[in-house]
Amino acid sequence: MTTRPKCTIHDHHFGWDNILPPKLEVEPGETIEFEVLDSSGGQFTRASGHSDVSVLDFAKVNPVTGPIFVRGAEPGDALTVDILEFRPSGFGWTAAIPGFGLLTEDFPEPYLKLWHYGQHTAEFLPGIEVPVRPFPGTIGNAPAEPGHHSVVPPRAVGGNMDIRDLTAGTTLHLPVAVPGALFSVGDTHAAQGDGEVCGTAIESAMHVTLRFGLVKGAGLKTPRFSTPGAVTAHIDGKGYHVTTGIGPDLYAAAQDATRGMIDLMGKEYSLAPMDAYLLCSVAADLRISEIVDAPNWLVSLYLPRSIFS
Amino acid sequence: MTTRPKCTIHDHHFGWDNILPPKLEVEPGETIEFEVLDSSGGQFTRASGHSDVSVLDFAKVNPVTGPIFVRGAEPGDALTVDILEFRPSGFGWTAAIPGFGLLTEDFPEPYLKLWHYGQHTAEFLPGIEVPVRPFPGTIGNAPAEPGHHSVVPPRAVGGNMDIRDLTAGTTLHLPVAVPGALFSVGDTHAAQGDGEVCGTAIESAMHVTLRFGLVKGAGLKTPRFSTPGAVTAHIDGKGYHVTTGIGPDLYAAAQDATRGMIDLMGKEYSLAPMDAYLLCSVAADLRISEIVDAPNWLVSLYLPRSIFS
Repeated sequence: MTTRPKCTIHDHHFGWDNILPPKLEVEPGETIEFEVLDSSGGQFTRASGHSDVSVLDFAKVNPVTGPIFVRGAEPGDALTVDILEFRPSGFGWTAAIPGFGLLTEDFPEPYLKLWHYGQHTAEFLPGIEVPVRPFPGTIGNAPAEPGHHSVVPPRAVGGNMDIRDLTAGTTLHLPVAVPGALFSVGDTHAAQGDGEVCGTAIESAMHVTLRFGLVKGAGLKTPRFSTPGAVTAHIDGKGYHVTTGIGPDLYAAAQDATRGMIDLMGKEYSLAPMDAYLLCSVAADLRISEIVDAPNWLVSLYLPRSIFS
Repeated sequence: MTTRPKCTIHDHHFGWDNILPPKLEVEPGETIEFEVLDSSGGQFTRASGHSDVSVLDFAKVNPVTGPIFVRGAEPGDALTVDILEFRPSGFGWTAAIPGFGLLTEDFPEPYLKLWHYGQHTAEFLPGIEVPVRPFPGTIGNAPAEPGHHSVVPPRAVGGNMDIRDLTAGTTLHLPVAVPGALFSVGDTHAAQGDGEVCGTAIESAMHVTLRFGLVKGAGLKTPRFSTPGAVTAHIDGKGYHVTTGIGPDLYAAAQDATRGMIDLMGKEYSLAPMDAYLLCSVAADLRISEIVDAPNWLVSLYLPRSIFS
């Protein structure tokens, strides 16, 4: 095996800015290994507790490793990123952070759950195992707009997309907005459900190996990706508990579906509301069942039964 | 096999009204077979074409079979519905109806696609087969509010929910709002993707067999259901093409993801935009990838590769 060029944790930055100098220049076709910090930038450790959430320094949140200058990349092209391999650290955390998350009004108190996970599963509580399926929460190119931009919202060039299916084997296409693309990656997750409802996944430092390519003049408006195989086979076999939210606002419907699931998990599995909220975030999936029966749309939250032994 | 009590297509009504007289009274535990009309109420036939969409009589749209009075059901209870069996008719249709659907502005012209489907698949075009997976688009109880209510929007008591996973084997829990529940079912679909983006699925008349039960004092706010097994195993194996929409409005993000997929299907499979739109509606799934990275949420549309041979 050849030694791959590396981007280390020292090559990180906070937020997006297209005047940041590239840490590495690559040719299309090249493969790079990235060392990625967790989304707290190392602020949460094996010794952390709930009170550490209250003093989290937001200026140091969600560092991304990069940027990478891809030779030949021009605005209007698509950067292709083959997501090849993850080397997870085995330590992670999930937090309820006041002011952040789909049900922040219902859960105003800070809360921190630490994980020590294996290759295949992460134990949430005895009898509840969440499948490990690593992906980068944040992956994207620098925006065209000058200045510093918060890392929190995803954009047309990607960024903090939190798409749980960007796992090994997937190819991601990202719009290029500036010469060289100025690609960065961070915020690796060991597991997450669609929606990431509490605002955090199993946040975890990892090494990520990526291969870059270019599609000239792709005219792509927003990121797209393709997965070579199944995305739910690891959870699908035993079926789901599903709750719904119904109404003219998809956001409120998603809140209602999540509240319904927290209520159900309390009744069926005696889970405390905060535990149920965090478990939804790492293991349950938000789907839009219908978006056409005006004026009411329907959002469903799918919790796989397979996580319960 | 015992002969089951039946609710025939003559036992249908349009819209919800809690003063409609029940067509049948059942005990909890009883199993009933329902004859269900397609959502055009028979207006589209094997001889129909695009121009018939323009003259669709909306007063006769989405008939539901029922209502059923369930003995002992009281407001605050949950009606459980075991979805046991479907006998599909083999004929169906999908339409773009002006003024209806997620991208109605992009597709202002009426369009009608007829299907002659088999037990397992429905051919969309040569080389494109959509898996058949029957479910009732509309299934619910009468609302507490007096008067006539349109069948189009789903409500807390269920109705036109268009949840594609309410297939055979699933158990649905519906809030009861009036004595006897006054349950009805209709709008059977042979296949649909999450979202039903063009506004219609493979709309198709069927026989549906359901078993009723009660959970007294369940205090359920919105419908929930449980599936005993896999919900995506039939499409998951070959992976997906996925497009995204990103922004502060989930509805607009869902529109962008769908537009991106129509564009991609044109490039990858030479599909005309209208064909791609209809195919998304019957075979692609809208998911909320993240709903926490303020101010931008991310909606993804998943098109399974397995439908293409």
